[in-house]
Amino acid sequence: MAKIVILGSGVMGTAMTVPLNDANHAVHLVGTHLDGDIIQEIKKNRVHPLIDFRLADTVELYTYDQLGQAMKGAELIILGVNSLGIKWAAEMLGPLLSPQVPVLFLTKGLVGDGQNLLILPDALRVLLPAQHRDNYRLAAIGGPMLATELAARRNTSVVITGSDQALLDELADLLRTPYFHIWTSTDQIGVEVCAALKNAYALGVGLVTGWLEKKRGPEDKAALFNPAATIFAQSMLEISYLVDRMGGQMNSVLTLSGAGDLYVTCLGGRNSQMGRLLGLGIPYAEAKVKHMRNITIEGAEMIRAIGPTIETMLDRGELDAAAVPLLRTVVAILCHDAAAKIPWKEFFAGPQL
Amino acid sequence: MAKIVILGSGVMGTAMTVPLNDANHAVHLVGTHLDGDIIQEIKKNRVHPLIDFRLADTVELYTYDQLGQAMKGAELIILGVNSLGIKWAAEMLGPLLSPQVPVLFLTKGLVGDGQNLLILPDALRVLLPAQHRDNYRLAAIGGPMLATELAARRNTSVVITGSDQALLDELADLLRTPYFHIWTSTDQIGVEVCAALKNAYALGVGLVTGWLEKKRGPEDKAALFNPAATIFAQSMLEISYLVDRMGGQMNSVLTLSGAGDLYVTCLGGRNSQMGRLLGLGIPYAEAKVKHMRNITIEGAEMIRAIGPTIETMLDRGELDAAAVPLLRTVVAILCHDAAAKIPWKEFFAGPQL
Repeated sequence: MAKIVILGSGVMGTAMTVPLNDANHAVHLVGTHLDGDIIQEIKKNRVHPLIDFRLADTVELYTYDQLGQAMKGAELIILGVNSLGIKWAAEMLGPLLSPQVPVLFLTKGLVGDGQNLLILPDALRVLLPAQHRDNYRLAAIGGPMLATELAARRNTSVVITGSDQALLDELADLLRTPYFHIWTSTDQIGVEVCAALKNAYALGVGLVTGWLEKKRGPEDKAALFNPAATIFAQSMLEISYLVDRMGGQMNSVLTLSGAGDLYVTCLGGRNSQMGRLLGLGIPYAEAKVKHMRNITIEGAEMIRAIGPTIETMLDRGELDAAAVPLLRTVVAILCHDAAAKIPWKEFFAGPQL
Repeated sequence: MAKIVILGSGVMGTAMTVPLNDANHAVHLVGTHLDGDIIQEIKKNRVHPLIDFRLADTVELYTYDQLGQAMKGAELIILGVNSLGIKWAAEMLGPLLSPQVPVLFLTKGLVGDGQNLLILPDALRVLLPAQHRDNYRLAAIGGPMLATELAARRNTSVVITGSDQALLDELADLLRTPYFHIWTSTDQIGVEVCAALKNAYALGVGLVTGWLEKKRGPEDKAALFNPAATIFAQSMLEISYLVDRMGGQMNSVLTLSGAGDLYVTCLGGRNSQMGRLLGLGIPYAEAKVKHMRNITIEGAEMIRAIGPTIETMLDRGELDAAAVPLLRTVVAILCHDAAAKIPWKEFFAGPQL
């Protein structure tokens, strides 16, 4: 039994209380500065407003200003903030985090500084106090884990990644339950790039659905699996290219962090729902406000954040435009309100891997 | 405009009449010896009993005994027989096929001779008349193409594979339409092994669905995407291993023939439906007779046919048992009526690729 703090009471952070509680840990859930209403709501009836299950009575609840109290004696910090909240998290954790306490990222994403892309653990590390910078023990989770299913104790398989195999083994042993299956991988770049990109590419799979729904006649009820599968395949190829470019390994693309997470995100995710709205021709800002106002669309938010960096890398020839026609399409739609259009002829034309 | 003969009036062979007709070819659809009722039914009202669309009036219909008449002057033969019908097809085509007329396989599968696995074009070639054996021009289609969607003119992307790039280009130009997107690949082993195995692995994805439906309480309505995604990822890894073992290339695994076709088959296929029944604990013979009597379950039929060959290859150490736990599970269930059980702990344990 360990004392574990989860920072961020979104659906994923909240769902994680279930396996942690089942593994007999003392679970402390801390809302961010944006989660005040959620923590209040959970305190009332032990149910999160966006994910329908009852939190165990033993889970202790905190607001962000109580983080110091929550972290006292904590043996593991799990980071469940939005990917745009890394800077905030660094400011909050900086003064409180002792370097020997591991930080595990539930948060998935990439950060762009205008010139290059960074995985989140690397982005956090440079924001933490300089004197301990090289000593922080950071790891991250990848793989197909929809929050609602994890909370319902569905068999869920993930991979914990980081550079220190001993830490990975320690974390896997800590978190494993009979339904929460855990593997480890030191291919941090591969796992993290897959985990981040799958949101953007699932949005692409949704895109073709919306695009075809709009084009077809009202009497046409045939499914849209063939076109979606084309986008899925092109996504796998582009993810492989990008992982390879950034120094990750093919094994991560083929397994839980790549193929598995892309699959689950296409089937059950919010990103593919947003993609469908974009494919119907609704501009992002309107789709967000009218249809998905209070929902975080990780893929869309990440692409809006890193789109300019990707465009710079394309301009400089660091990314091959022919290898990523789908990514370019998604960037154009999300960053420049370009019309939804599927570039069929450009697919499968990049360099062979 | 070319004269094209499709041998086999199953759903896929029949759906292919749509793009061929749209590409202005003269289409001749020939039923096999098992398709007599289907041809009669289509002749009555131009609708196939198992796929709901109206055949173009220009498509000419034949029974198998009229194959010689149909093939007179044909410029392309498209083979749409069941994978178990290759021997029959060889006997029918042998006396009629001139070696310069290309044969394109819609049929996907593998054949086992007890010792080794063969892709279908190789299996057909050795059954055709010996004097022309090396001259026949064989090619095959892979990729995500559900028949109902192709017939509805959904954007469908496929890859034509064979050893002769000039033939592949010729076929692609012949078959392409604005919604039927065609790529080519000379990685015949990779494309064909993916195309065959995806049926068996989609059955595995269905399996976990049935297995969990049976285990969970009636009040538990959470989706099953997390466990299905685990199986999907393990499937991708096992397919990569098997393609590599047989001499194919990773690019085929990552693209239309691998990731794309596995995705579409999991979502829309008959194999995943059969998998679900097996996961519920219904033995294959009973599931087939009671629930899917007149439906070809390619994955199940193939595994029952090649299961003994796979077991021999495992026994001889030609396949690494640790690399294919899911395939071993599917073989055990289909060939030996083993209880449905998901070997979670054995996943992702094979050799790194």
